[in-house]
Amino acid sequence: MNHAILLISCPDSKGITAAVTGFIATNSGNIIHADQHIDEQSNTFFMRIEWSLKGFHIKRENIVEVFGPIAQKFHMIWQLHFTDQKMRTAIFVSKHLHCLYDLLYRYRAGQLACEMVVIISNHPDAQNLAKDFKIKFHEFAVLKENKSEQEKKQMEILKQENIDVVVLARYHQILTPAFVNAYKNRIINIHHSFLPAFAGQNPYLQAYQRGVKLIGATSHYVTQALDEGPIIEQDTVRISHRDALEDLVRKGEDLEKVVLSRAVRWHLEKKILCYANKTVVFD
Amino acid sequence: MNHAILLISCPDSKGITAAVTGFIATNSGNIIHADQHIDEQSNTFFMRIEWSLKGFHIKRENIVEVFGPIAQKFHMIWQLHFTDQKMRTAIFVSKHLHCLYDLLYRYRAGQLACEMVVIISNHPDAQNLAKDFKIKFHEFAVLKENKSEQEKKQMEILKQENIDVVVLARYHQILTPAFVNAYKNRIINIHHSFLPAFAGQNPYLQAYQRGVKLIGATSHYVTQALDEGPIIEQDTVRISHRDALEDLVRKGEDLEKVVLSRAVRWHLEKKILCYANKTVVFD
Amino acid sequence: MNHAILLISCPDSKGITAAVTGFIATNSGNIIHADQHIDEQSNTFFMRIEWSLKGFHIKRENIVEVFGPIAQKFHMIWQLHFTDQKMRTAIFVSKHLHCLYDLLYRYRAGQLACEMVVIISNHPDAQNLAKDFKIKFHEFAVLKENKSEQEKKQMEILKQENIDVVVLARYHQILTPAFVNAYKNRIINIHHSFLPAFAGQNPYLQAYQRGVKLIGATSHYVTQALDEGPIIEQDTVRISHRDALEDLVRKGEDLEKVVLSRAVRWHLEKKILCYANKTVVFD
Amino acid sequence: MNHAILLISCPDSKGITAAVTGFIATNSGNIIHADQHIDEQSNTFFMRIEWSLKGFHIKRENIVEVFGPIAQKFHMIWQLHFTDQKMRTAIFVSKHLHCLYDLLYRYRAGQLACEMVVIISNHPDAQNLAKDFKIKFHEFAVLKENKSEQEKKQMEILKQENIDVVVLARYHQILTPAFVNAYKNRIINIHHSFLPAFAGQNPYLQAYQRGVKLIGATSHYVTQALDEGPIIEQDTVRISHRDALEDLVRKGEDLEKVVLSRAVRWHLEKKILCYANKTVVFD
Repeated sequence: MNHAILLISCPDSKGITAAVTGFIATNSGNIIHADQHIDEQSNTFFMRIEWSLKGFHIKRENIVEVFGPIAQKFHMIWQLHFTDQKMRTAIFVSKHLHCLYDLLYRYRAGQLACEMVVIISNHPDAQNLAKDFKIKFHEFAVLKENKSEQEKKQMEILKQENIDVVVLARYHQILTPAFVNAYKNRIINIHHSFLPAFAGQNPYLQAYQRGVKLIGATSHYVTQALDEGPIIEQDTVRISHRDALEDLVRKGEDLEKVVLSRAVRWHLEKKILCYANKTVVFD
Repeated sequence: MNHAILLISCPDSKGITAAVTGFIATNSGNIIHADQHIDEQSNTFFMRIEWSLKGFHIKRENIVEVFGPIAQKFHMIWQLHFTDQKMRTAIFVSKHLHCLYDLLYRYRAGQLACEMVVIISNHPDAQNLAKDFKIKFHEFAVLKENKSEQEKKQMEILKQENIDVVVLARYHQILTPAFVNAYKNRIINIHHSFLPAFAGQNPYLQAYQRGVKLIGATSHYVTQALDEGPIIEQDTVRISHRDALEDLVRKGEDLEKVVLSRAVRWHLEKKILCYANKTVVFD
Repeated sequence: MNHAILLISCPDSKGITAAVTGFIATNSGNIIHADQHIDEQSNTFFMRIEWSLKGFHIKRENIVEVFGPIAQKFHMIWQLHFTDQKMRTAIFVSKHLHCLYDLLYRYRAGQLACEMVVIISNHPDAQNLAKDFKIKFHEFAVLKENKSEQEKKQMEILKQENIDVVVLARYHQILTPAFVNAYKNRIINIHHSFLPAFAGQNPYLQAYQRGVKLIGATSHYVTQALDEGPIIEQDTVRISHRDALEDLVRKGEDLEKVVLSRAVRWHLEKKILCYANKTVVFD
Repeated sequence: MNHAILLISCPDSKGITAAVTGFIATNSGNIIHADQHIDEQSNTFFMRIEWSLKGFHIKRENIVEVFGPIAQKFHMIWQLHFTDQKMRTAIFVSKHLHCLYDLLYRYRAGQLACEMVVIISNHPDAQNLAKDFKIKFHEFAVLKENKSEQEKKQMEILKQENIDVVVLARYHQILTPAFVNAYKNRIINIHHSFLPAFAGQNPYLQAYQRGVKLIGATSHYVTQALDEGPIIEQDTVRISHRDALEDLVRKGEDLEKVVLSRAVRWHLEKKILCYANKTVVFD
């Protein structure tokens, strides 16, 4: 049941879809999912196409070579994935463990198509949970003076473990540009507000003080500009004057779990394309 | 800015998308939107493809002929539409005018790509509104003994006016099988509950008595089985013990307007395919 | 069926509810609704209590006198209303008429307990709608150089007509402090974003460019700080990459109508208390 | 920080609130929360009032005696609770463990004010989870022929453990009337549909086949009539034709967790009153 997935973006022009689907049909591939989108403002074409390798005439190791000229003709930026290559995943977390707990449950329930390889934290709190789920755990206490040093050690682990994607499941440290650049569009964060409202510190307190009637959560790719990366998913829930700050936190945590897990799942299933600091999500 | 739209369903097999998009590309058409879906249970392929006729090598009156062999090869059920052919629309209504009022406003605001031709009612209440919007109005008081007679007159009007789609915007009469069959998948109803809950009479009262915590609205195509046709759109809103029956009605009416207008808009933009008493909505 | 309504806020202390409900019970009043809330942060007590005047031993014109000492004892800020005194309402609007249209329909349907007295605009577009609904209409073209002058004329009309509440139903002029101060907590605005995100100009464009996955609408009381007054109601709706800017506008308008009409209805039914730039809404 | 809570329902008449709040004020109690509701259809008065015992003149063991005459005068059905008396809770579960997992996490996070005493299952799957959380676990395989026998053993455990509330966290056995009657309004179930739609077996399959556009979850008290007890909480989430049956299950499980945990929390905090097969939830 192994599938190939092409993620494509390029300037829109006539014949792109015909060329891609013709390539698959000619080689006897069976399309499982196909989605495309044209952004009219920038005249950009986006496509995600998934087809079965069963009976496909081209060997998987040769697809890049055969498809290359088509990609070149249309000036495509493209990625080729296979569903049997599960992304190797690292989770970073601090002291709030609800998102970690939720991701681990979903992983065990088979909802996340990845290898959970390692949990990294600046605190010891997640250690037992990691043990319960038999996942490696590393603690790196982060202080102002050792930050870049500790980050280097973290990145070494990511390298050694061949990590494909980093999930910040309420990791309360700002990553350095070096880290962010090394994993462009591969670090997924959850921010506990409806961005761009209440960016930065203490978003629930900010929301409480402003007197909003809904609170939100936002999952986004991390960029150098704090809380300003491409948004993958958001959701909101109703609150009222009866809700104290701790009710906002409790209601918000339910949102965070759902929003982050959706974003991670879409990323793992290669359903997200980035452009112009936005995302196209082919869910 | 005239576009052609193909709506296709057929047994899934290799090469369908390549054939359809190849047909468009070969003839120098520019795809504006393309959506497809495979229902794995029934192995059915669905497609909606919209392309610009500007520069397309085949004249619009010849498309059917040229595309015919492709359709035949894949055993397609298919429809060809053009965006400059606006559907001629009739609205049926009884005494609750909120949906009618809402549809007329959206029509005037340019949100509904149709010709609003006629309003038909079993009561006189909508007459003034029809006059304000300069739309023909016919009243047919319906009693048990004259129902089929009155319906025949209604259907004559629909024929004379070349009506493509009938919207039941809270029309409280059950249509006869003859009427329903004459407009299969072309009669859109709004039911004021989250179907299949509370089908039939007085859904708000039923909901109130059952003590549900959300109420809903459902827009669906009309079939002979009451409230059991293919569902196009649904939505819900929260209620509480504080809401009296009249609050349910008020909150529900807001839902009805939004749900019905979405369904009508999707139908007018040819975004809906029916199968197995369900809908595929390419929104 | 005339009711009295007390809106109370004061420092929390023992015995307030007993004193207020005792006052009503002693004088043979029948409580219809009672709601209270204690803000623990500021130790403030809020109450809304509504009781039937049928059989109440104190004449309505004497209630203020008799209740006065109780209010004084607890240092209450309080308002007394009667449900047969409908608020006299003015609507300000510019060129987007969807909210106006919606409010007028609800008014005619009996959902808004007010007198719709006058519509004021800086454009002529709403004139016909006002005529259809038989409501006075005044146009005041506003330019930089005549702004304060035109506002004075508007305020004269409001005075002459004894206006209690001003609804800005997409009125695209910033009111001067003089105007705002004259109608403190009595000017209700609809902003077409989920505040505090996308305050100011062109919120839909801002939302589109940021790539958010939900858009919102916010109804709030107008203060001197633009888009920063106490929030009365908010709601959000899902969008995706498939939605162009005009889809955001269309979906957003449906939100604006619902959000503004809720806020206006609560205000007219005296269900809102303001404090600390927030609202308590006893819905 | 110990509080007393009174839950009251009685025929509505003048002076109830004054009598109850007067009782508290006279004895120097400080009200923390007060909520009341009048059901106009049945003329029934409902109240939840919570006050601090700090400085209250009546000893907790004497409150029943002193309040008794007031209750009698107004023909009240009433309960008295204290926040330091945590409900002893049993969870029943079968093979789907997501709700159990979620409840245990919330319990550990301090969100559920109860003693989690025992987990009972007709399968062994939850045993390890129970061990991780150090909660007693009993397995009772249930077959047609031993059902009433096994239920008796379960009820003996509930008795021995002084269980106050039973949570059916996806327990796929229908309880006998004897069991249900012994725990009237104290057994909370989660049904994986928006009741009354799709009662009974396989609600996700039913929803999939009907082609609904939203799925739901419902938490309710268990009565003898299957899936027809008083509804405590419901919620819905959007699905589309793109969602296969397993997507419905996945999305639905997220709903189930949130809906069940809200219902359980409200019950544990004594925020629910039942009447006429409905609930009043003072959240």
